[in-house]
Amino acid sequence: MNTEAAFIDALRTIATSSAARGLSDDAAVLEIGGSRLVLTMDAIVEGVHFLPDDPPETIAWKLVAVNVSDLAAKGAAPRGCLLSYALAQDDAWDGAFLRGLSDASETFGIPLLGGDTVRQPAGSPRSFSLVALGEPAASVGVPCRAGATVGDGVWVTGPIGDAGLGLALLRGDRTAAEQASRTLTAAYRTPRPDPGLGLALAPHVSAMMDISDGLLIDAGRLAQASDVGIVIELDRVPLSESFVLVAGDDLAAILFAATAGDDYRLLFTAPAEQEPDLHTACAAGAAIHRVGEVTSGEGLSLRFAKEAVPLPLNLGYSH
Amino acid sequence: MNTEAAFIDALRTIATSSAARGLSDDAAVLEIGGSRLVLTMDAIVEGVHFLPDDPPETIAWKLVAVNVSDLAAKGAAPRGCLLSYALAQDDAWDGAFLRGLSDASETFGIPLLGGDTVRQPAGSPRSFSLVALGEPAASVGVPCRAGATVGDGVWVTGPIGDAGLGLALLRGDRTAAEQASRTLTAAYRTPRPDPGLGLALAPHVSAMMDISDGLLIDAGRLAQASDVGIVIELDRVPLSESFVLVAGDDLAAILFAATAGDDYRLLFTAPAEQEPDLHTACAAGAAIHRVGEVTSGEGLSLRFAKEAVPLPLNLGYSH
Repeated sequence: MNTEAAFIDALRTIATSSAARGLSDDAAVLEIGGSRLVLTMDAIVEGVHFLPDDPPETIAWKLVAVNVSDLAAKGAAPRGCLLSYALAQDDAWDGAFLRGLSDASETFGIPLLGGDTVRQPAGSPRSFSLVALGEPAASVGVPCRAGATVGDGVWVTGPIGDAGLGLALLRGDRTAAEQASRTLTAAYRTPRPDPGLGLALAPHVSAMMDISDGLLIDAGRLAQASDVGIVIELDRVPLSESFVLVAGDDLAAILFAATAGDDYRLLFTAPAEQEPDLHTACAAGAAIHRVGEVTSGEGLSLRFAKEAVPLPLNLGYSH
Repeated sequence: MNTEAAFIDALRTIATSSAARGLSDDAAVLEIGGSRLVLTMDAIVEGVHFLPDDPPETIAWKLVAVNVSDLAAKGAAPRGCLLSYALAQDDAWDGAFLRGLSDASETFGIPLLGGDTVRQPAGSPRSFSLVALGEPAASVGVPCRAGATVGDGVWVTGPIGDAGLGLALLRGDRTAAEQASRTLTAAYRTPRPDPGLGLALAPHVSAMMDISDGLLIDAGRLAQASDVGIVIELDRVPLSESFVLVAGDDLAAILFAATAGDDYRLLFTAPAEQEPDLHTACAAGAAIHRVGEVTSGEGLSLRFAKEAVPLPLNLGYSH
């Protein structure tokens, strides 16, 4: 049991409740009274999910945002969150974290309901968990990963790759002019999932998830859960101006974007007849982009300028 | 902000939703659709909440049990839980933890719905969080800490002190014959909260909480939340046979029991006219014990054999 995947397989033998969705979705869906509640829990660990010198405000923001992103992918409106906080034993750090928490809680409309604080022994890496609760719209199914059907379009909300390029800049692997650098590192540190968009799309999608580990790896997971194949047209992957300025828009740049992760955008599939409704649903200004198609068979395949492209060795962040 | 209490005070300025109950209760109460959901999140950390050489099975059990204990105190039936798990990078350890998790999940009827696994950097102390969700009985209020009224009796489910004595045995601070030692260390490692009892008592109590940090410190917290005084008659604190065998039942032994913590028993107050109903509610065999009275004024006072006893310096585990 030396990988997370093997451990989760073992957990599945315990998590047999239908609400757990076989632990293969981004969230659990609990029926309570006559209502449904979407539940997600994501932890972030220093050195794994954030950099040791990231500002505490943005670490708190990211903790909230990655969970809100899961709610968005399930078409659920945020209703509250609970925080497990390891005290930093550093007043200024704790205070800054609280400011970021407060800011994210207000921005995403997700009130803090409770949680637990513990003293983390000195010297250990910081680690925080958050549980987010959301409520789907009445009489709309909660989208899962398993509903993609042959012929469906594959869509993303974009742009893709900004956060990954921001991380590369923070690590010193790349350089960029100040303005672009600011935009891209902000995408890494303070992602902005959009639960309103998830709610609007939910009635029209056949499957939906958020892109946390990379477009390609997450598309592969969606294909596997739905028991279908997915073709991604790489030249359709939406890139931001800042991204293109720094990394260009050739195949290598697009592959970087599509495998970098931390996007917290939505990936979804929808039948062709839903396309007009998809566009209406995000009339509010959010852009959606058709980046591929659901096919028979299995697994992921890539095309660029109408030519087949071999899969890169790493499809994203695998953990 | 150098204590947990100060940090929680700062959190209160964020957690303004009524569902958060001012962060002064053991759980949040969220209204969702026409239903109410009780939510609690407790983390446990190696060296703080469990011993480094505690068996992984019992660490998992305790993680579930401390959360179920909060549900019990709010009169809520367990409905599900989410786990944040730091992979041990030790197959045998992970496997043993899963067995304990499965065992506790079945025993308490609290299905695992989801969660998150993260890789904990090597060498850092183990740390786990769990969120438990429960459903109160329809049309019964969710007991809080703030409802105690002058003249109410103060009650506990018992016995008290076994876990604290078990911890002392595990630490080598005490010795005991094997049988007693087994019973007491099991009380520390595998507490057995009783949500059924909490559900049965909820309609009849004026305030209720679980005893996690010590009877005296928790009674003081209940008194403070309710803005009343509480007198505890120490000679009425229920002790187990094993406890008495090892530690005796003199004032020093009782004070040890009442300040040791980790009991995960219920502490509640109830008006005199509810006494017959209290006894009926726990006809199923659980013992309840009247250990004191709610008085006007504020704070905690102690009596033993009808004489006033000064408060010990440490009322329990303060964190």
